Amino acid sequence: MDNSMNALPEDTFKILIATDNHLGYSEKNAIRGQDSFVTFEEILQLASVNKVDFILLGGDLFHDSRPSTYCINKCIELLRKYCLGDKPVEIEFLSDQSYHFQYQRNPIVNYEDPNLNVSIPVFTIHGNHDDPTGNKQISVLDILAASGLINYFGRCNDFNKVDIKPILLQKGEVKLAIYGLSHIKDERLGRLFLDRKVTMKMPQGEDWFNILVLHQNRVARGVKNFIPESAIPNFIDLVIWGHEHDCKITPEPIGNNNTHISQPGSSIATSLALGESIPKKVALLQVSKDGFKMIPIPLQTVRPFILDELFLENPQSENYLYEKPSEQAVDQVKQKINEMIAKATTQHKDKSKPAPLPLIRLKVFYHNEQQMFNTVRIGMQFSGRVANPDDMVKLNSITAKEKKAKSKF
Amino acid sequence: MDNSMNALPEDTFKILIATDNHLGYSEKNAIRGQDSFVTFEEILQLASVNKVDFILLGGDLFHDSRPSTYCINKCIELLRKYCLGDKPVEIEFLSDQSYHFQYQRNPIVNYEDPNLNVSIPVFTIHGNHDDPTGNKQISVLDILAASGLINYFGRCNDFNKVDIKPILLQKGEVKLAIYGLSHIKDERLGRLFLDRKVTMKMPQGEDWFNILVLHQNRVARGVKNFIPESAIPNFIDLVIWGHEHDCKITPEPIGNNNTHISQPGSSIATSLALGESIPKKVALLQVSKDGFKMIPIPLQTVRPFILDELFLENPQSENYLYEKPSEQAVDQVKQKINEMIAKATTQHKDKSKPAPLPLIRLKVFYHNEQQMFNTVRIGMQFSGRVANPDDMVKLNSITAKEKKAKSKF
Ligand SMILES: [Mn+2]
Ligand SMILES: [Mn+2]
Ligand SMILES: [Mn+2]
Ligand SMILES: [Mn+2]
Repeated sequence: MDNSMNALPEDTFKILIATDNHLGYSEKNAIRGQDSFVTFEEILQLASVNKVDFILLGGDLFHDSRPSTYCINKCIELLRKYCLGDKPVEIEFLSDQSYHFQYQRNPIVNYEDPNLNVSIPVFTIHGNHDDPTGNKQISVLDILAASGLINYFGRCNDFNKVDIKPILLQKGEVKLAIYGLSHIKDERLGRLFLDRKVTMKMPQGEDWFNILVLHQNRVARGVKNFIPESAIPNFIDLVIWGHEHDCKITPEPIGNNNTHISQPGSSIATSLALGESIPKKVALLQVSKDGFKMIPIPLQTVRPFILDELFLENPQSENYLYEKPSEQAVDQVKQKINEMIAKATTQHKDKSKPAPLPLIRLKVFYHNEQQMFNTVRIGMQFSGRVANPDDMVKLNSITAKEKKAKSKF
Repeated sequence: MDNSMNALPEDTFKILIATDNHLGYSEKNAIRGQDSFVTFEEILQLASVNKVDFILLGGDLFHDSRPSTYCINKCIELLRKYCLGDKPVEIEFLSDQSYHFQYQRNPIVNYEDPNLNVSIPVFTIHGNHDDPTGNKQISVLDILAASGLINYFGRCNDFNKVDIKPILLQKGEVKLAIYGLSHIKDERLGRLFLDRKVTMKMPQGEDWFNILVLHQNRVARGVKNFIPESAIPNFIDLVIWGHEHDCKITPEPIGNNNTHISQPGSSIATSLALGESIPKKVALLQVSKDGFKMIPIPLQTVRPFILDELFLENPQSENYLYEKPSEQAVDQVKQKINEMIAKATTQHKDKSKPAPLPLIRLKVFYHNEQQMFNTVRIGMQFSGRVANPDDMVKLNSITAKEKKAKSKF
């Protein structure tokens, strides 16, 4: 990784990197229904404003493998608005298009179709949310590819081995090889790695910058249920790791070689877990003969998400003053939530727009059952001030938490 | 209607007329699954070979309002293959595009989009099978329109009145006004007609050829459950009547004026009813200052469909020879079906391709229950020779039929 890029613009790839946009997530929710689309539009605008050569996505563009008519329509509208136009595409496609796009009736990269005026090509693999479905195994990404709005690649249908041939691109004097690996069940892919049945076919010559884009568990979610970093071949320069929603987009080196991993994270929180509260970003990746540079761009439209814990005071302690422990609990919780809402407000940077209602998740731990209270009622009291009144507060016994903490060791 | 067209090609609209393609009908059926797509492709090829100015569809392009991913993908692939290309579009759009295409993010006619190279514009209304769905009321046709492959018009969201402003097109010296009325519940539309709350706004000037395209019941399927021909305004020259699947494509005059109705019928049989056994056709409509001409084109790819009735011999009659009436029935039925298959074979004209398995529907009427037989078993015996072994034979009591016939009077 080299932060001093001296190459000329015509010899530098400029790529917008994002993943896990989960279009259609919670689309029927009156407050949050538009979130996934609004942020996806922000990402497309960033690509447009920064005049990137292309967009590279890491899977889970859609939240459902059978999105609603509304969701597909909305996505097509956005892609058509931002990715068609007169800006010339300055990249050259060197590898065999009839191989990469073999599942399409017209197997060509979209910007070479004489009937379409593409300004920003989008390349994407599929994730576990937008994988092929039905007895004909068609992904909603195939629909976008058929309409000429994206280039869907890296699909492997062989259950016994995975041979990845990279997409080869050239811009000026820089050469880029993109190894796409659409989502495969982690257990199966892990097994194939162990059995040395995953091969990546390096192109001729030595001056290629090699990017692997995949969509798999990086965090161990069970034995053999993730892809160990050691499975990444040494010659890969940069891994774009989709599927993990925590934003760790700044490339981190692994092992003793020059391989770096960038984990962009999702552009929308699809759960109220800690990792989703890390501020969401996309990145501008520049690749030249000097190396690469990855500039994170914080997303402005993402709804603030504040997650915290609250340990209620112990009613058995000496200085406990309240008569009704549940009333004390409600007072303490309300105060805490007010603080969290205030904190969310400070995160809102774009003062030209009103701050969106924040996502709030407070885990409350009680000592005894007298401290328990109605979480639904407290949610209702914050309706209009938070985006998720229905699941804002989670109530747990402190002993359960202590047990859980102990069992980790 | 004038069959002697002397106008020059540059002063003659050439339009391919079709309706009710029902893409995705029975798509999971191993034998018939591709039928709707194969015939839709034939229609697009006819449009291409005949170098039409545009295609006009009458609704029910899709069989389901939420088609499978496969079905949407397939439709987009076909439209992209046949409707994009270098053939110049020679028609001029005169009316307000931002009105006609108001439900689109980019409300323009597709062939005027500088980012798309459209060769054959498709104009369509929606039917009752591909109408808007969900709380956002989006039709699968909106997806096709968003991707720039069709022009979806004639949608009315007002439940209290229908004001139809026509699409105005010009080619050379001919002017065409197309009044689009996407499907509305027949009861409601019928009421609105009665209350004189349906208006069609005629354009200025008198030299317009006026086409109304609608998708409603034409046949009375209950009181007030159809649109009477008398509801059609006098100034309409030609009605393209979608929804009714019987092919009656040759224009028929109505009333005392010059209005004609063409009912193209579906391009695939979606039931084994008598009307669906009429040979399927589309038409080439030519409109010039001299008038119009509509040339029916029989579809070659449609699976033959033979429907017939068989009255079993009465076991109580004098010359009844069989010991087991059910055996006699089976013999008679088999012979009849063999004759029907032979008849289907003669309908197959294109000798360059193997004849597709025919659809066969035989209604068998018995006199007493001893004549009943296993229709499933007989279907299995014709498996491989007919397209619908599962529902080939329907068994009914002759007395039930006689009763039904009497009750009609
Ligand atoms: Mn995801
Ligand atoms: Mn995923
Ligand atoms: Mn129909
Ligand atoms: Mn219909």
